[in-house]
Amino acid sequence: MNTEPSGSRLERQIEFILEIDKLKQVFRQTYLLDRSRKENDAEHSWHLAMLAILFAEYATEPDIDVQRVVKMVLIHDLVEIDAGDTFRYDEEGAKTKQKRELAAADRIFNILPPDQAAEIRALWDEFEAMDTPESRYAAAIDRLQPLLHNLSTEGITWREQGVTADMVLDKNSLVAAGTPQLWEYVKTLIHEAVEKGHLKAR
Amino acid sequence: MNTEPSGSRLERQIEFILEIDKLKQVFRQTYLLDRSRKENDAEHSWHLAMLAILFAEYATEPDIDVQRVVKMVLIHDLVEIDAGDTFRYDEEGAKTKQKRELAAADRIFNILPPDQAAEIRALWDEFEAMDTPESRYAAAIDRLQPLLHNLSTEGITWREQGVTADMVLDKNSLVAAGTPQLWEYVKTLIHEAVEKGHLKAR
Repeated sequence: MNTEPSGSRLERQIEFILEIDKLKQVFRQTYLLDRSRKENDAEHSWHLAMLAILFAEYATEPDIDVQRVVKMVLIHDLVEIDAGDTFRYDEEGAKTKQKRELAAADRIFNILPPDQAAEIRALWDEFEAMDTPESRYAAAIDRLQPLLHNLSTEGITWREQGVTADMVLDKNSLVAAGTPQLWEYVKTLIHEAVEKGHLKAR
Repeated sequence: MNTEPSGSRLERQIEFILEIDKLKQVFRQTYLLDRSRKENDAEHSWHLAMLAILFAEYATEPDIDVQRVVKMVLIHDLVEIDAGDTFRYDEEGAKTKQKRELAAADRIFNILPPDQAAEIRALWDEFEAMDTPESRYAAAIDRLQPLLHNLSTEGITWREQGVTADMVLDKNSLVAAGTPQLWEYVKTLIHEAVEKGHLKAR
């Protein structure tokens, strides 16, 4: 379904830049640290790019291409403009997630001229497949960021959504795979959160 | 004023990641394209990183280091966590902007371990000095993005803030310097905006 819009190269690039403004209105379950509101995908993507740059030393594989990781996390949620955000612990949403996101990728990326559409699509496919050192690192920090937010807000989203420590430990094994040292650190904090009553054990 | 916080390397990195969450609450004068609210610095920084990647072919100097531009725009507004956003056309605010932002850079970047603090500071200094091809390109897209937003929202911020075409053309010469082809395109749209009554001529 490669429905390519008409228009000059520059017009298509600008149309894309304007289209992706919508990412600022796709809200996630994660709260800002001041707990005033939930964060949106554009903010989350920016925050992940900063994590990608600053935590590269903790990636499992050495000498990863940080630039590609940064690009990957900047574009990884664009499909949610059409598909919406699926909460990590939403089993029902998970069933239709891939189909919804594939249709979104076809529409949104193809607003761009073909060469750039192909580049963004390749980055997104790599992110989704998680079969390169870069995409495994990206997947790890994508899970790490909401964990840090929950750990710093007395587990506000966990409590709101009925998430337990068992679920957190089960659903975030990719952090262990992509950034083992950070996972050890976070695991300690998760156990502390249970002790403090911010997270139910099961 | 290098007041370095205590803590292990990882603790300082995580403290910084949590600190910069505040960028999501620093609001700009630019509206989202759906006009529902103003955008914040985190969203703006993400959007700029996307422009940096997709418009690199329009940079004045060929073969710029896009990776450095992306990093530069991701961190360029962090100082506004303390210093606040200064509107492009605010002459009073402009007088104290540098002093406020330098103090902010000293505090915020030095939360990081020294090597990473120095890297981020060097990127910010380069962005501010605008004396490299990368920083001139970054400055151009930093001005281009709010122009595109105004041009796509019938000049909502321009009208709200009493900005005229004379001011827009005067204050955005850096777009012409950094991305001449995009400036030509945008100039046409600015003239159209005047004709449509979305922007006062003077």
